[in-house]
Amino acid sequence: MTTPGRSASEYSEVQHSRLKVGLPLPSVIKNSFTIVDGPPSSSSGNPDEIAKLFPCLFGQPSAMLKPGDSGQSDQSLKIGVVLSGGQAPGGHNVISGIFDYLQNRTKGSVLYGFKGGPAGVMNGKYVELTADFVYPYRNQGGFDMICSGRDKIETPEQFTQAQETAKKLDLDGLVVIGGDDSNTNACLLAENFRSKNMKTRVIGCPKTIDGDLKSKEVPTSFGFDTACKIYAEMIGNVMTDARSTGKYYHFVRLMGRAASHITLECALQTHPNVTIIGEEVAAQKQTLKNVTDYITDIICKRAEHGYNYGVVLIPEGLIDFIPEVQQLISELNEILANDVVDEGGIWKKKLRTQSQQLFDFLPQAIQEQLLLERDPHGNVQVAKIETEKMLIEMVETALEKKKKEGQYKKDFNGQSHFFGYEGRCGLPSNFDSNYCYALGYGAGALLQSGKTGLISSVGNLGAPVQDWTVGGTALTSLMDVERRHGKFKPVIKKAMVELEGAPFKKFESMRDDWATKNRYVSPGPVQFVGATSNDLSHTLMLELGVQA
Amino acid sequence: MTTPGRSASEYSEVQHSRLKVGLPLPSVIKNSFTIVDGPPSSSSGNPDEIAKLFPCLFGQPSAMLKPGDSGQSDQSLKIGVVLSGGQAPGGHNVISGIFDYLQNRTKGSVLYGFKGGPAGVMNGKYVELTADFVYPYRNQGGFDMICSGRDKIETPEQFTQAQETAKKLDLDGLVVIGGDDSNTNACLLAENFRSKNMKTRVIGCPKTIDGDLKSKEVPTSFGFDTACKIYAEMIGNVMTDARSTGKYYHFVRLMGRAASHITLECALQTHPNVTIIGEEVAAQKQTLKNVTDYITDIICKRAEHGYNYGVVLIPEGLIDFIPEVQQLISELNEILANDVVDEGGIWKKKLRTQSQQLFDFLPQAIQEQLLLERDPHGNVQVAKIETEKMLIEMVETALEKKKKEGQYKKDFNGQSHFFGYEGRCGLPSNFDSNYCYALGYGAGALLQSGKTGLISSVGNLGAPVQDWTVGGTALTSLMDVERRHGKFKPVIKKAMVELEGAPFKKFESMRDDWATKNRYVSPGPVQFVGATSNDLSHTLMLELGVQA
Repeated sequence: MTTPGRSASEYSEVQHSRLKVGLPLPSVIKNSFTIVDGPPSSSSGNPDEIAKLFPCLFGQPSAMLKPGDSGQSDQSLKIGVVLSGGQAPGGHNVISGIFDYLQNRTKGSVLYGFKGGPAGVMNGKYVELTADFVYPYRNQGGFDMICSGRDKIETPEQFTQAQETAKKLDLDGLVVIGGDDSNTNACLLAENFRSKNMKTRVIGCPKTIDGDLKSKEVPTSFGFDTACKIYAEMIGNVMTDARSTGKYYHFVRLMGRAASHITLECALQTHPNVTIIGEEVAAQKQTLKNVTDYITDIICKRAEHGYNYGVVLIPEGLIDFIPEVQQLISELNEILANDVVDEGGIWKKKLRTQSQQLFDFLPQAIQEQLLLERDPHGNVQVAKIETEKMLIEMVETALEKKKKEGQYKKDFNGQSHFFGYEGRCGLPSNFDSNYCYALGYGAGALLQSGKTGLISSVGNLGAPVQDWTVGGTALTSLMDVERRHGKFKPVIKKAMVELEGAPFKKFESMRDDWATKNRYVSPGPVQFVGATSNDLSHTLMLELGVQA
Repeated sequence: MTTPGRSASEYSEVQHSRLKVGLPLPSVIKNSFTIVDGPPSSSSGNPDEIAKLFPCLFGQPSAMLKPGDSGQSDQSLKIGVVLSGGQAPGGHNVISGIFDYLQNRTKGSVLYGFKGGPAGVMNGKYVELTADFVYPYRNQGGFDMICSGRDKIETPEQFTQAQETAKKLDLDGLVVIGGDDSNTNACLLAENFRSKNMKTRVIGCPKTIDGDLKSKEVPTSFGFDTACKIYAEMIGNVMTDARSTGKYYHFVRLMGRAASHITLECALQTHPNVTIIGEEVAAQKQTLKNVTDYITDIICKRAEHGYNYGVVLIPEGLIDFIPEVQQLISELNEILANDVVDEGGIWKKKLRTQSQQLFDFLPQAIQEQLLLERDPHGNVQVAKIETEKMLIEMVETALEKKKKEGQYKKDFNGQSHFFGYEGRCGLPSNFDSNYCYALGYGAGALLQSGKTGLISSVGNLGAPVQDWTVGGTALTSLMDVERRHGKFKPVIKKAMVELEGAPFKKFESMRDDWATKNRYVSPGPVQFVGATSNDLSHTLMLELGVQA
């Protein structure tokens, strides 16, 4: 199957206007630069183990571009690029950035796009990226230029396959665009190539709409900005609808299975009545009943203020943050594997008391789902539970009880929403367009200067693009180990919502006000032109300290 | 409960920028004008019956503003305004237009906003709209300035209540902002007031995102433009995701219970692989199996081209267009009212053969829903059926069969979406902002000149705003009668998708190409500034003949 490529002749007016818009570059990389190494690095945790896992790369310094002339050769390069994991707006601009760097700085270079993710590296499926091929994807959403995949390069055989491809194409470098896992694997590949004395360098790029790949040097992952703005647009519209109609509670589930950054950012942008942050639920060891009671109490308070409507934001990973649910699921998996689920419910006695109570607390549809729908390994499919619908049912039941007790007098109407696919492939915001282009351009510079095992890092993002910093951070410095199957595995730990961080603190200081009063904000559609078009996400502004 | 009103201090940057933007007016109403009556009008059908139902108003001419000086008095007026039915982007601008007209042309006038829809007119609940109160709603989405409602003023008692309110407030006029039903009722109210020799005039305004209130003189209803653009943005994003991921069929249900204009417009904007238009299904007397086969065939053809993904658009009213489904529902209602539904299924023998076959063809979840979920009258709740999920299941079953027969070799993965609430309350597009402001401004002019029983009509919409025409169309001229409970009732017939009309013809000429090839267009987020910001909907451009 060939990648047919896009034709801009099919584009909408907005797509055309985005295609034509120029991309600004940080001054430091636009002009001549030299690369300055920092001090030796360590790791995020367990440096001894990381040192053992990365004997060639451990301890290498991060790199920063500075004005000057490094006298680098402009020798042509052969570079590969691969997209790994889920879509995020801006991926095409990373590739455009690499391409333009090579065109402008290393005449005669070739860029290969590996097709369908890391599998393309292993089986040697690629397309040579030409100016005509790349052009229609500039500032456009999606990953369809070369498509992505979720395969990993991790076994010895797979490393050998990757080596063969690198040798066959005589690759000087490979850029891996991906999330925490993909960047960990990029570093393993860099280590592997280096250990084999191959010339192929590997540079990572931070991608994920979930926003959970970040550190001091990597202020944000690309795609988070656009995805949150698209979700926030829709939440704002639903809020206005709620206020106009005056009779619905909208429960909105948002992407983010591991971390709740998207939910927090959307809350900061729109001021919903209720926002559940998974990390807080976990820190406080809340039960599902606690969460239900919290929502129910706010609904009752709002009823006293005369408001019988509202908006509730929920991260899709909520259930994974609740310890008792995890316990129930593991007991259920055990029972379902070994016992018969009898209609009379005798099987339930095998659950621990707390799990039994939780099971009985769940809406019937969820009970049935837990018992009936299982994955190929026979396990309960937690990911398939529509958390927002489950919460609507539980809140409804709790409110009926309160109504009987005279503590609630309205009629509750819940409406469920899941905003997911709509945000992953939108046209990238100005921020993501510019950030990704700089990430790609910077990756080109790092490869040209012989760097490997770094993640492209663009900083000082609160300033205008021209003042952004460009460099690379040692991937090993972001790593810790986890013990899996008796072995240490390197991992870049997901950045969770910090309960002491500025974004959560700001949310925390305002949420009670948002709960009972209506402080709804409608961010509106992403604008590409005008005063509002270059706004950063609230999360990033608060973390950078450029917003109070 | 008082309407608290909005505070712009909570607004997002985009909301602020919209608030500050100036609203252009058609020259004819910006300058001095005179109102010219057209020839006597008739009705859309059954003129004799309409004449009987509207003895005072039948036959009155439509009115058109022309440059000149009518020498109208600038005597102050007392005007009421009411929002009726579901939200549509732009409603606040209609009110702003009326308000500004009164301020600029009839010094000392008062505008009352009736709260919560027609019920507010009947029970005399209103707020006096001042400049400070109205200002924060300019160019903003929602109906929350005065909120809406679905009550109707139709019984003699209700007319008396409305008369009392009109007398108490000494109303010179009332503007009813609503859809086909609300405008029919506005005309009945105009007739009633006139027959009682009251001075209160009534003017309608065409509102509905569904786009099914239109005629020669009323080229489009407001809200359709913005809602379709919002839905199309999301569809475009989902398309890009489908192409990038390469493994999902997204089934998107869109608003429009009676007519499929929204689905058709979104198809023209985005070029999906499959689009089901209810009016065509009805005209061809298609069965649910026909629809399923049509989708399945395209999926198989795409598989031959190597595409295992796609996007399917479905109007929410699809089921209502399929005669055999209507038949099944009515038989089910009969059986459920009188018989016991036995587990053995003997009850099914009471269905006619065709209905029995259709019932067996339906996915189990839908069968259960039909049997279990009933409205307070005991009827099957057709509106609750999630058509997109039902079609996914039916297509899946059909593809499994084809797979066994060796005619399909891929794995089918359906993803369901419903885009509804997200579009009803978005920030109005430039078109809806300007169109609504002109509709409201024009309604002010019609009331000042003593007109009643007209619907505000703004035309020549393919031209720049300054060249738009402004006038009023006799509501009786849009009417026909329907026989209900043995009586003739006046109705403004919903404008359905015309299978011979330019929008459908254009779609029809392109859909086979869209089906197997990927002609996806991503309209992107609504822009308020720049070249693309004033685009009309494809439907309107094609109907006006300004797009080929």
